[in-house]
Amino acid sequence: MKIGFLGFGEVASNISKWLKDSGLEIYTSLENRSQRTQDLVEKSGVNICENNKSLANISDILISALTPDEAINVAREIGKYSKGVYVDINNISPETAQKALEYIENGRTADAAIMGGIKKEGKKVQIIASGSHAEQFSQLNQYGMNIKVTSPHLGQSKALKMLRSAYTKGVSALIFESLYSAYKLDLDEELLECLKITEGPDFMKSALSRVISSAYHARRRAEEMDEVLSFISNYNDPIMSKATMECFKNISKTVNQDIMAENYKDVFKSHK
Amino acid sequence: MKIGFLGFGEVASNISKWLKDSGLEIYTSLENRSQRTQDLVEKSGVNICENNKSLANISDILISALTPDEAINVAREIGKYSKGVYVDINNISPETAQKALEYIENGRTADAAIMGGIKKEGKKVQIIASGSHAEQFSQLNQYGMNIKVTSPHLGQSKALKMLRSAYTKGVSALIFESLYSAYKLDLDEELLECLKITEGPDFMKSALSRVISSAYHARRRAEEMDEVLSFISNYNDPIMSKATMECFKNISKTVNQDIMAENYKDVFKSHK
Repeated sequence: MKIGFLGFGEVASNISKWLKDSGLEIYTSLENRSQRTQDLVEKSGVNICENNKSLANISDILISALTPDEAINVAREIGKYSKGVYVDINNISPETAQKALEYIENGRTADAAIMGGIKKEGKKVQIIASGSHAEQFSQLNQYGMNIKVTSPHLGQSKALKMLRSAYTKGVSALIFESLYSAYKLDLDEELLECLKITEGPDFMKSALSRVISSAYHARRRAEEMDEVLSFISNYNDPIMSKATMECFKNISKTVNQDIMAENYKDVFKSHK
Repeated sequence: MKIGFLGFGEVASNISKWLKDSGLEIYTSLENRSQRTQDLVEKSGVNICENNKSLANISDILISALTPDEAINVAREIGKYSKGVYVDINNISPETAQKALEYIENGRTADAAIMGGIKKEGKKVQIIASGSHAEQFSQLNQYGMNIKVTSPHLGQSKALKMLRSAYTKGVSALIFESLYSAYKLDLDEELLECLKITEGPDFMKSALSRVISSAYHARRRAEEMDEVLSFISNYNDPIMSKATMECFKNISKTVNQDIMAENYKDVFKSHK
């Protein structure tokens, strides 16, 4: 079985490594790829096709793992050449995934979403898949992946990812804001200590990791929340999600982020 | 050692039971108490003083556990009669506690805050104490309580409680909002299942318990958040806490609450 990757960033390079180690043939193409990606491909030792079209033509499963703004364009470009199952694992909304997958002429499609940190959790990270050909994609579980098919309806896995983001990013914003107030009152350590008691054994580690990564990635989080918001607003008035986006915007603009990142890096090390 | 309780609601009746079972003499008074409280007192078998003044006069440790709006008035009333250590464990802001404790003429005071659910956690529930006489209050640890002295500065324990509330009530609002959107998309069970994987082993139980109690107590939560907000606003721009209050207000006004309470009660039972 030949597995192709459109794009070769963090997601593709990790998944391709797991699958290659399990004995599968991995392919990608360097068409329109950055120097950084070309280096990643070279290091990984995967097979290189001449271009995206020939990659689409030979892949039994073709996984689209691009930057969000490329997802539709690349699907349009290779839509009539895709011979196998085309899986969109891009970090995009259900609507955008739907649009992209409409270009795949053979109709053998699935959308997928990664529910956690691919670097941190490795091949155990859960991947949710939906769409008419999600079951075929989940055959990669035989090669060590952790794919769960949630529905034959296209877009459900992206929807689930958005809902999950609304919660997890919201918790990050909350712990950042609460801890920043506590920091100003010189009660930050006490706050963490007393939350630890009721919020479970993993609280301390995950809270500190959330504060630090919120500090470093506030701008990107705000952008991601913007997409989450425009999706959820179709179903609910997302008061907390609006605040989450505002909070990350605010963090990215103010000096808080440096204070928080530096302040809790050491605390974090001692709780690792 | 004689322990007195001003007020005899849930907090006083629980703590007095632990201390009575450990052999301490417990006192209260029925002055201005409701019929419900009088019944609670009778059932508890604690000693009854003629009025608040005589209670203040004989208590080695006098614990004020009233409704928030009584805290200042009762302190003013018995301020010059309090002979022992006066501990304010009311659910009030640091500023209000400060005002109340200024009436205690002997100056032997502490403020305390309960960090968790007294009914659910029992005598293991952590109580944080601060103020000049917090150490004396913490002697009750010899009788099975779990009091942690955090600072000799009056008001710190109430401040910590407010910060903790900002976080825990925020998480409740977040899980409610996320789950309600998921419910509308028929993805609520899937959302809980996939959060369970990354949010720790206690996630499911605590999320469901938070959703149900948010549904039932939305109005009270909104009121409590109002007080949290007015405290935190002195130190930070509490974007997430404002949203938490709005979210609870919204829940208390709309039909969501019944859907959510009913819907997850059964799910909750199966995860207990």
